[in-house]
Amino acid sequence: MNTDFSLFGSGVPGRKRVFWQELWRHELEELVRQDPVVIVTTGSVEQHGPHLPLDVDIVDAHAIAAAAAMAIDDFPVIVSPPIWTGLSHYKQGHPGTITLRMETYVEVVCDVCRSIHRNGFERIVLLNGHGGNRSINQAIAIKLAEEDIFILPITYWDMVSDLLVEQSQRDAGSIGHAGEWETAFQLYLRPDLVAHDRIAGDDDRPDLPPDMRRYTAFAERLRERAGGVHGDPSTATPEQGKILFDASRDELVRLIHAYRALPVRHYAEFMDGQ
Amino acid sequence: MNTDFSLFGSGVPGRKRVFWQELWRHELEELVRQDPVVIVTTGSVEQHGPHLPLDVDIVDAHAIAAAAAMAIDDFPVIVSPPIWTGLSHYKQGHPGTITLRMETYVEVVCDVCRSIHRNGFERIVLLNGHGGNRSINQAIAIKLAEEDIFILPITYWDMVSDLLVEQSQRDAGSIGHAGEWETAFQLYLRPDLVAHDRIAGDDDRPDLPPDMRRYTAFAERLRERAGGVHGDPSTATPEQGKILFDASRDELVRLIHAYRALPVRHYAEFMDGQ
Amino acid sequence: MNTDFSLFGSGVPGRKRVFWQELWRHELEELVRQDPVVIVTTGSVEQHGPHLPLDVDIVDAHAIAAAAAMAIDDFPVIVSPPIWTGLSHYKQGHPGTITLRMETYVEVVCDVCRSIHRNGFERIVLLNGHGGNRSINQAIAIKLAEEDIFILPITYWDMVSDLLVEQSQRDAGSIGHAGEWETAFQLYLRPDLVAHDRIAGDDDRPDLPPDMRRYTAFAERLRERAGGVHGDPSTATPEQGKILFDASRDELVRLIHAYRALPVRHYAEFMDGQ
Amino acid sequence: MNTDFSLFGSGVPGRKRVFWQELWRHELEELVRQDPVVIVTTGSVEQHGPHLPLDVDIVDAHAIAAAAAMAIDDFPVIVSPPIWTGLSHYKQGHPGTITLRMETYVEVVCDVCRSIHRNGFERIVLLNGHGGNRSINQAIAIKLAEEDIFILPITYWDMVSDLLVEQSQRDAGSIGHAGEWETAFQLYLRPDLVAHDRIAGDDDRPDLPPDMRRYTAFAERLRERAGGVHGDPSTATPEQGKILFDASRDELVRLIHAYRALPVRHYAEFMDGQ
Amino acid sequence: MNTDFSLFGSGVPGRKRVFWQELWRHELEELVRQDPVVIVTTGSVEQHGPHLPLDVDIVDAHAIAAAAAMAIDDFPVIVSPPIWTGLSHYKQGHPGTITLRMETYVEVVCDVCRSIHRNGFERIVLLNGHGGNRSINQAIAIKLAEEDIFILPITYWDMVSDLLVEQSQRDAGSIGHAGEWETAFQLYLRPDLVAHDRIAGDDDRPDLPPDMRRYTAFAERLRERAGGVHGDPSTATPEQGKILFDASRDELVRLIHAYRALPVRHYAEFMDGQ
Amino acid sequence: MNTDFSLFGSGVPGRKRVFWQELWRHELEELVRQDPVVIVTTGSVEQHGPHLPLDVDIVDAHAIAAAAAMAIDDFPVIVSPPIWTGLSHYKQGHPGTITLRMETYVEVVCDVCRSIHRNGFERIVLLNGHGGNRSINQAIAIKLAEEDIFILPITYWDMVSDLLVEQSQRDAGSIGHAGEWETAFQLYLRPDLVAHDRIAGDDDRPDLPPDMRRYTAFAERLRERAGGVHGDPSTATPEQGKILFDASRDELVRLIHAYRALPVRHYAEFMDGQ
Repeated sequence: MNTDFSLFGSGVPGRKRVFWQELWRHELEELVRQDPVVIVTTGSVEQHGPHLPLDVDIVDAHAIAAAAAMAIDDFPVIVSPPIWTGLSHYKQGHPGTITLRMETYVEVVCDVCRSIHRNGFERIVLLNGHGGNRSINQAIAIKLAEEDIFILPITYWDMVSDLLVEQSQRDAGSIGHAGEWETAFQLYLRPDLVAHDRIAGDDDRPDLPPDMRRYTAFAERLRERAGGVHGDPSTATPEQGKILFDASRDELVRLIHAYRALPVRHYAEFMDGQ
Repeated sequence: MNTDFSLFGSGVPGRKRVFWQELWRHELEELVRQDPVVIVTTGSVEQHGPHLPLDVDIVDAHAIAAAAAMAIDDFPVIVSPPIWTGLSHYKQGHPGTITLRMETYVEVVCDVCRSIHRNGFERIVLLNGHGGNRSINQAIAIKLAEEDIFILPITYWDMVSDLLVEQSQRDAGSIGHAGEWETAFQLYLRPDLVAHDRIAGDDDRPDLPPDMRRYTAFAERLRERAGGVHGDPSTATPEQGKILFDASRDELVRLIHAYRALPVRHYAEFMDGQ
Repeated sequence: MNTDFSLFGSGVPGRKRVFWQELWRHELEELVRQDPVVIVTTGSVEQHGPHLPLDVDIVDAHAIAAAAAMAIDDFPVIVSPPIWTGLSHYKQGHPGTITLRMETYVEVVCDVCRSIHRNGFERIVLLNGHGGNRSINQAIAIKLAEEDIFILPITYWDMVSDLLVEQSQRDAGSIGHAGEWETAFQLYLRPDLVAHDRIAGDDDRPDLPPDMRRYTAFAERLRERAGGVHGDPSTATPEQGKILFDASRDELVRLIHAYRALPVRHYAEFMDGQ
Repeated sequence: MNTDFSLFGSGVPGRKRVFWQELWRHELEELVRQDPVVIVTTGSVEQHGPHLPLDVDIVDAHAIAAAAAMAIDDFPVIVSPPIWTGLSHYKQGHPGTITLRMETYVEVVCDVCRSIHRNGFERIVLLNGHGGNRSINQAIAIKLAEEDIFILPITYWDMVSDLLVEQSQRDAGSIGHAGEWETAFQLYLRPDLVAHDRIAGDDDRPDLPPDMRRYTAFAERLRERAGGVHGDPSTATPEQGKILFDASRDELVRLIHAYRALPVRHYAEFMDGQ
Repeated sequence: MNTDFSLFGSGVPGRKRVFWQELWRHELEELVRQDPVVIVTTGSVEQHGPHLPLDVDIVDAHAIAAAAAMAIDDFPVIVSPPIWTGLSHYKQGHPGTITLRMETYVEVVCDVCRSIHRNGFERIVLLNGHGGNRSINQAIAIKLAEEDIFILPITYWDMVSDLLVEQSQRDAGSIGHAGEWETAFQLYLRPDLVAHDRIAGDDDRPDLPPDMRRYTAFAERLRERAGGVHGDPSTATPEQGKILFDASRDELVRLIHAYRALPVRHYAEFMDGQ
Repeated sequence: MNTDFSLFGSGVPGRKRVFWQELWRHELEELVRQDPVVIVTTGSVEQHGPHLPLDVDIVDAHAIAAAAAMAIDDFPVIVSPPIWTGLSHYKQGHPGTITLRMETYVEVVCDVCRSIHRNGFERIVLLNGHGGNRSINQAIAIKLAEEDIFILPITYWDMVSDLLVEQSQRDAGSIGHAGEWETAFQLYLRPDLVAHDRIAGDDDRPDLPPDMRRYTAFAERLRERAGGVHGDPSTATPEQGKILFDASRDELVRLIHAYRALPVRHYAEFMDGQ
């Protein structure tokens, strides 16, 4: 796997230029005229069990975003710098977590989207890779709509929920935390950053029945186990990681095309036309 | 249908006392010792098309909450006064909407839950009846967990999503807005408040494909149509309303029992014990 | 006493429609053209001694508002849903209190008034029934004036201060807390919700001389006594409650007429015309 | 009249040291042990008609505070630096007004009181000279009580309301704005800062009846007239100013003695002892 | 030294009128047409060792501002009332400190500057006398620029940094806290408020090397010593105070002239013209 | 130049592990016991003239931080993920700028530092590469000290101010914006991301004299020129970039050693010991 989805890429010769921060002024001025789509990624830097690095959630989202942007050639897709400061629970009991308070998180994501919109970019996809950001990102989309900024909030594994069920050996369709799927993703993307000899499962504990967990759940703290893992990473393979990565990228590509086929800001204009 | 789910009930003789605001001090002091569950309801007062009153979303949630509380006898279930001030979009183009800004909404719900928790009640269900509150309620649950207040956020129609598909004539499993299901609910609960002769459908407009709308959506403003309706209320019946009401109440009763069977605050204790 | 001042009224046949939340869109569109007055009520849900329910303060204000609205026929008067979340002290030592922090309270009342104003309703009366909200409601009126929203803040007992002196047996003109007057009010409005056998007085304690208490007072916490009562409810009668209720309603009717006789927004226009 | 109530006094030889900011460390350390009272003054710097300087409201309060502090010898009374940044309306149409937003004002007053309390001073009188601060100061007292900081909020003319009626030639007991009383006060305190030849009355305009204005009023903006004056300053005399000043000082002295006679923090302790 | 730089000056006959709060309306209306400069002063009221009063920082800045304003005759220079509420550390261990939290401080300074700007005054100098306000004042200038309010933030000793080195006996160019320079300043301005017999040095403690302290420093708390002094006041003289005062005033006069020679709001206009 | 200072490094074999986000749990648990230093970098993503990419400010700081961390072997130095969201002016007139409001920026930096501190890391260096963040970072250090979190705020070019004067061909010691020095830095670090053929100077415009600009400046907006450049990049060379980079890294290494030689939290302990 090519791992050059860096924040501060080195301008790899021949690589398609998709990162906002690496673009020159004249490029941006040209791109904004072509009805482009900007992907803003959100994630977290937080404890990820004994075997994974701390930036799993933002790396996963950012890698999918970059791959989708590179795969689309009929119109410009730009990837903003990653928002790695997520909404994680700060008393998680294991070292490594950097978290924002919810109010701070809302303002950071809003200010970034406002800035992009102010630059003239009207199509913004907010691609998320961290469970704690999932619902607040949806709420942020509602909040920003009051300012006539319409963003499309997506958490990547929701795009491939059927695949998570079909291809799972252990975690029964759940993305978990440092479990089967996140481990597989890292084994595929960055095997050197997986501490293979430390992979271990986690204890079980009482919870609501699975059919209820489809529509409700206790907050983040619930998911913390003695080992800091939610799910069972023991059977994860790089092949599973590739399946998840490819499917997520492909669905994102499909979604961005569907989004781009809609008139710009038609939702707002609909109202204005009344 | 008995419609005495009032905020300011008249102490109907013989009616089971489930409303927080009607209880006396000695009753509360006794209830808090029995590991009770408190249901806080959230909704909205907002335009609801040409045929429905403005308080549909909070009335629906509050009626379900009260019915569930009355149906459970093995432990106390109390219903707090309804939080009718929701997160609605304020430029909806039709009169009637009262909305909070997102920041205000978060603080109101948090302060209410904090107060209840401070009174010694540790089990709180946050039952929602308004689409605009759905994701922010989930985010609030994450936020409050940082203060060791664990609430269970539920939007009532998520509990009965299969039923919405099976029993729908028009809206294909979507709760909509003043569409088939909300109209049916009011025809059952409060037929006198439905303007029967004004029921009308709404224009269609471009949107993402349905399979994508399962995992993402544009913000609230999307749902505003020329008629202020999302969905088709023309075939709604009180019988559908009763089916939705009964199923929601029954599932809530089942959930509350499952919740109560878990140890109190086991999620937090789990961490503390590490 | 007829007690149908419910939040979620059942559309009692023949009853005059005065509640915002029960109105249909076409009704609101018609009313807004008639220079209407909207009454927003504020109160609290908090401990009210051993003998009263928790929602006394909001019920009192809301009942007066509804009665005044029903009594005025020459122009429309609408009553918004009640703001039951007040500014109470949260360490009151007795169970039942749900309180907002001051900042949250300010934003809720402002957002509700802003929404009503945005709907085109320019005359708003803020009728209060809870001591802790009294001064902050006045401050909110100043704050909202900066946004060209002019509201008239009133605490109901201030309208009838002479009556409180003349008709009191025990509390010497003070509304108190669960004392003579609030108990009388409930005995009249909702006798079934008064725990008659638990009515008791309260201990005395050092305070400023009465003539100084006319112009200053210590904050809420001062009024909390061992029994959670401020005043002496032992002699309260339903007849006193009716006197207070009728006088409050009548004075509110008179005030609303005086308010309506003034030009709309003359205060702001005065400035703009300079 | 001696006008040395300066913020930055020059240490007039022989003058009693009452200003917080001029005290030395060893003096404060000694005073705090003697159960002292601290007076914090609030006012405004804002347009004051064609004939008065802009700092009338804070100077009036601060002068009364300093005079009372100097008049009390049996225990220490200290006057903090004046909070001259008030809650005034910023679109007043005449130059000179410096205003805080309400949120800022609340935090400034709270932070000042918190600091004083943190220094060990538990008795704080908040003496106000500006109408726009009156209700919010009362609300601040409620807010601070949640932090176990108990302050006594007073607006100086409320202490002498009978006198305002008895001694008024024109303004019928109202303090007004740059009217009879405020002009008299300045004629007494600082005659050089009164533009005698510019004193003029103001136009009248529609308002609520006087008996209603006892219990409600429109917000600040109401009081702005074409001339920036509320009331009639044309007959004001320095003698009236002296009467108002002396009476205010004397009542404040009486109040501080009554306050000091109460046990320290008895209100809070009362609760804690339950 | 003439010490009449009072907040509430007595209108000393013949003294040039430079204080915002003492001006009459017609004066302000005339001044605003002459492209005036307004100086807003910031400082602190906080513990200042055993020998100085608490208001040193605001008095120093305010005295320099007033002297500069009086020295400039070719265009109007006005001094606003002093913002004495600074950003000091509240756990300083010695009595006397009144501090704002940073958020409160920012809003107070911004609201004051916004008010002045709204009155039509476009040139604002923010002259600071307290170390804790130094960097935040610079940040405030950036913040206000977003509102098209351009202020010039200055801390007085930065204007005369060479002089602090040349003329210092002990403190090697550092302004310190109640050290050589601040003591000298007070000995010159207000000798009666210096407790001469309590002047004492302070203990030393580990710190970064001096060459590093030119570009970084630990926060305020660093400067707190056992004696509450940073620096050595033992050799301070009134003559040093006069040198510092005169040099600061002269440089401020020079700066204001340079500022006034630039086109009004040229920085913003430059952008708008693109 | 090796440019692997990526956010999402690929675990280059043999490379020293210094990035927080790439560490495993057991590594962090071991490092925290060795009295480590954490460097948090702040910068901006904003327009950088016609020839530079947008992330210059954060890349510069982050590269220096990483190089210093790799150069220190006697104790652990860890580099947190970069805070690329800075305080830039959002109306800059050229595309590319993503900015936070000041309040948001403060909270992000504080929350990140609080999280790191909560993980047990007590030595935090805040290394900045963006002019707009310079003063607010210093203010944040003061704010965090109130929470007993002591950070050392540094802007990299302040460490090498003499070098900027000595080695400059054009910009006379000023770091500028996309001028000589920032261009040189990029020519050294990432030559592929410099649009060599677009390098151009900028127009001049009126400003304060240079000797005054040493102690004051107008806010950010000042620096915006027609070309979006402040300074003259035409003669910049990669050799200059290397000089600046090496000197900054070396001085940071020297500073971190000096910092580490001080007792942990000695500033706070000093106070507590009094």
